[in-house]
Amino acid sequence: MTKRKLETCFSPALFEPERHTGSIVVIIDILRASSAICTAFANGAVSIIPVAEVAKARDYKSKGYLVAAERDGYILDFADFGNSPFNFTKEKVSGKTIVYSTTNGTGIINLALSAYMTVIGSFLNIGALTRWLIKQDRDLLFLCAGWKNRFNLEDTVCAGAIADILMKSKRFTTICDSTLAAMDLWSVASSDLKGYIEKAAQRTRLRDKNLDDCIEFCLTSDFTDKIPVMENGALIAYS
Amino acid sequence: MTKRKLETCFSPALFEPERHTGSIVVIIDILRASSAICTAFANGAVSIIPVAEVAKARDYKSKGYLVAAERDGYILDFADFGNSPFNFTKEKVSGKTIVYSTTNGTGIINLALSAYMTVIGSFLNIGALTRWLIKQDRDLLFLCAGWKNRFNLEDTVCAGAIADILMKSKRFTTICDSTLAAMDLWSVASSDLKGYIEKAAQRTRLRDKNLDDCIEFCLTSDFTDKIPVMENGALIAYS
Repeated sequence: MTKRKLETCFSPALFEPERHTGSIVVIIDILRASSAICTAFANGAVSIIPVAEVAKARDYKSKGYLVAAERDGYILDFADFGNSPFNFTKEKVSGKTIVYSTTNGTGIINLALSAYMTVIGSFLNIGALTRWLIKQDRDLLFLCAGWKNRFNLEDTVCAGAIADILMKSKRFTTICDSTLAAMDLWSVASSDLKGYIEKAAQRTRLRDKNLDDCIEFCLTSDFTDKIPVMENGALIAYS
Repeated sequence: MTKRKLETCFSPALFEPERHTGSIVVIIDILRASSAICTAFANGAVSIIPVAEVAKARDYKSKGYLVAAERDGYILDFADFGNSPFNFTKEKVSGKTIVYSTTNGTGIINLALSAYMTVIGSFLNIGALTRWLIKQDRDLLFLCAGWKNRFNLEDTVCAGAIADILMKSKRFTTICDSTLAAMDLWSVASSDLKGYIEKAAQRTRLRDKNLDDCIEFCLTSDFTDKIPVMENGALIAYS
């Protein structure tokens, strides 16, 4: 069986959609969008509509939707709640469709719509996600959200952790320098992930805003078996 | 004394010139442009005019200039020689001005002209470069050439090696995730740099074109004390 290719893109600004129309794109934005999305589905959300623009999120709110929306970490005034995974409780989201708009992550989900399929990755669903990806027999791109188009450590390390599992399955190969770097950074970080992420810029930004209570949770492996997948303009969960 | 900031940019496509007008930008393209430039000055070149466009390089040739020009590793038909550091021998370059055009590196030098100063970095001049940078008391940006706007391992590891020396001087600080990642990758690569670079995509590209004879040389520290610096549209060498 031909091995499938792994590639990693460290910033939406480096994404080359025309090269990945046959690939599954895994969106990684672990602090906090992709972790929040995984948590929402773990807690029974039915679907999540990712929305890049604030105006569009506000419009959904006026139509009666449950809206989670933040910019630079802060909840938007019209929204029901912000971007912490801890907001997406069973009580709030079970059985619901959520409209979701964040600084980075949700715009990127829509950026990758030309891919064969777009799924959401985080440490929270890493086991289920990697088992599922191995079965798909497709080339993969890990698209790291980064921060305002810049490289970030936390998404890179998560991409490296996912790549490490997939490479060990012997079903994938990579000649992508970004993937090799991500795997090497994961090898540096893995023995003390929480300690490693202490130096990440986003760690400091969240601490400065008192939004860092969820970081340890976001670095937890296998909280859920849900795999959020884009279908017809909304995320639903495979499991 | 206030510590100066280190930042790293993994691709020209991520470069934000407006953020670095007060900084010294260190251009890193070790396989092979920045290594070739350092070698040329070590061998007595007087100046190097970096030219992004092939047509402009051809124009200089017709005016009698010595021209080094390549695209995707191959020498252009009108050029005197290509992009290997081994081309820039004393016999060919001593006392000369060279017009130089490569796939990646030379366009990037001109991209950074809005910075306070643009200099060329490689392993070949790492000791002299870092001693000089410490004296300048300026914020620094390591601008990695990458490959066709993609991240590459070899330039990143070199940026990490430079950052590692500068951080040990206690005169610099960094909150830049890219710099921290580069330093971690250098920590993985440093004990066997040549072995580490074996997996880089550019290593394979150069091997496939029989252009890999210079790689070990390009990974050699302190071949020269020359520091190539852009002044009035051309590179000259400080030492």
